[in-house]
Amino acid sequence: MSELSLIKRFRAAAPTHPWVKVGPGQDCAVLSWAADRALAYKIDQVVEGTHFVLSGPEAAAPRRIGWKAMAKAVSDIAAAGCWPVAATVAVNLRKNLDDAFAMELFEGLSACCKRFNFALCGGDFTTSEQTLTLCVSLIGEGPQGGPAGGAWTRAGAQPGDWLLVTGELGGSRGGKHLDFIPRLEESRRIRELAGAGVHACIDITDGLSRDAAHICEESACGLRLEEAALPVAVTARNTDDGRSALEHVLGDGEDFELLLAVEPNAAQKLLAGWDHATPLRRIGTIEPAAVGRRIKRASGADEALPDLGYEHRTQGSA
Amino acid sequence: MSELSLIKRFRAAAPTHPWVKVGPGQDCAVLSWAADRALAYKIDQVVEGTHFVLSGPEAAAPRRIGWKAMAKAVSDIAAAGCWPVAATVAVNLRKNLDDAFAMELFEGLSACCKRFNFALCGGDFTTSEQTLTLCVSLIGEGPQGGPAGGAWTRAGAQPGDWLLVTGELGGSRGGKHLDFIPRLEESRRIRELAGAGVHACIDITDGLSRDAAHICEESACGLRLEEAALPVAVTARNTDDGRSALEHVLGDGEDFELLLAVEPNAAQKLLAGWDHATPLRRIGTIEPAAVGRRIKRASGADEALPDLGYEHRTQGSA
Repeated sequence: MSELSLIKRFRAAAPTHPWVKVGPGQDCAVLSWAADRALAYKIDQVVEGTHFVLSGPEAAAPRRIGWKAMAKAVSDIAAAGCWPVAATVAVNLRKNLDDAFAMELFEGLSACCKRFNFALCGGDFTTSEQTLTLCVSLIGEGPQGGPAGGAWTRAGAQPGDWLLVTGELGGSRGGKHLDFIPRLEESRRIRELAGAGVHACIDITDGLSRDAAHICEESACGLRLEEAALPVAVTARNTDDGRSALEHVLGDGEDFELLLAVEPNAAQKLLAGWDHATPLRRIGTIEPAAVGRRIKRASGADEALPDLGYEHRTQGSA
Repeated sequence: MSELSLIKRFRAAAPTHPWVKVGPGQDCAVLSWAADRALAYKIDQVVEGTHFVLSGPEAAAPRRIGWKAMAKAVSDIAAAGCWPVAATVAVNLRKNLDDAFAMELFEGLSACCKRFNFALCGGDFTTSEQTLTLCVSLIGEGPQGGPAGGAWTRAGAQPGDWLLVTGELGGSRGGKHLDFIPRLEESRRIRELAGAGVHACIDITDGLSRDAAHICEESACGLRLEEAALPVAVTARNTDDGRSALEHVLGDGEDFELLLAVEPNAAQKLLAGWDHATPLRRIGTIEPAAVGRRIKRASGADEALPDLGYEHRTQGSA
């Protein structure tokens, strides 16, 4: 079962509608619903055994699972440069989980809504024998305009653009993948400071290497990362799993940081004016497609960027 | 685990937003997103073992499962008097199901979108060891105006209103629950003919008895059904399960017909002008709350309406 080929076939065959400005394959769909604002639209899910576990040393409490389910979808709205307005949630509870567990799930979901002032306006609830799943849908608003209806997408990066990233990478170990704060306020501030200078954006869920590749594929471009500039999370250093810090930074999934391609003048202005507590750093440059995907090592060597995949600790598929 | 009490607690605690006109507890949430149209917003799911089975004599083919997942959510948009514009879908596939199975699921989902001209504009796809689930989110449009933002809800029924129902009841046996056509065109035609005369609407998923009770609870009213007027599906007659046709009509889930409370003059005009192939019939009257929920039997006896619950053949919870 190849997730990617299935998704490509689904994208090609998906029915459309005149109001859909951005369809399947981006962090969010975008619709032109009103004259004055874009509508970003997202569905996402977290599945027991894949995105969290309920037993063993890494067992997650229900509140953290609820938070993660909501925050993961919010991260995609942030990557579209939009702001969430309302969520709906479908929960499929295992029969052996009790009312208190269910209420804590809802509290985790609600906490994320409250943190960012959006509504939880509907839900569906079932129980079954096996596998807890939470599915979150979100609608968000953004400015109107442009071919993508005012939202950021993975397409639009141009050679010469600076590659910027929020926060630190390789940090999903140690529970951050459950407790992360989606980069929504950062996204809003970036839009304020860089305006239309933001050419492309993605949130890092499959690892920097794979998500940078998604921008390159959608924008028909290459890129060059600078190893020395990569912000390495403390939890990615000195791990005892035989993988280097660089491998963690490039390959670890669920960092939920924003990766942006920004026009150079706007990027300079953005970094100069950056006043949010979360770091924002330049980590490389968009290159012509012929260059491919490269990394300038700290040693000075220019190498092909390794295609390190999603290797989240709970495994499963993404 | 009581689904209802959990949902009530969730409704009371759910975060809100100024644009949300109708929040949790209705067939759809409704938002005022644009000045000229309402936005109906829905999430729904179908779960293996609860809403369909993959083995045994009642095993459903993946195309039918995909259709049902989408059509079930569309039915809620129809019950809100709105029209779907775009869907997103999250699929959690069992690992032992192959690519062909997944594509047939998508084809079933897409077939419903195409039938009613709306988009499938995004998705999420995971695989796990157990339990196939499909979660569908929909956004739909409706006219703007009124306290519910122009959409129909379960609230608003008034004593004297006629109770109308589309199609036939007790018919979900024999596979109709997988292949039903959501009453979207019927909903649109009802709106055209009855305008603001429609006071409340619900789609019948838990059985006529329970869903009529939902209208009474939300509208603070009672009602009286007329047994002689109830449209009984052929598959509800002469069953060998020891239950009468009336018990099937009142208690069987997943009929996916529309139950409406319509102001008497508008209802008369609506029935006189009704020109859709799907039948639309009067089956009773909204009464003051003090009357409670009654049924006038074919014998002439006036009895309390039995609270027959959801008894879908695959069992599980709803």
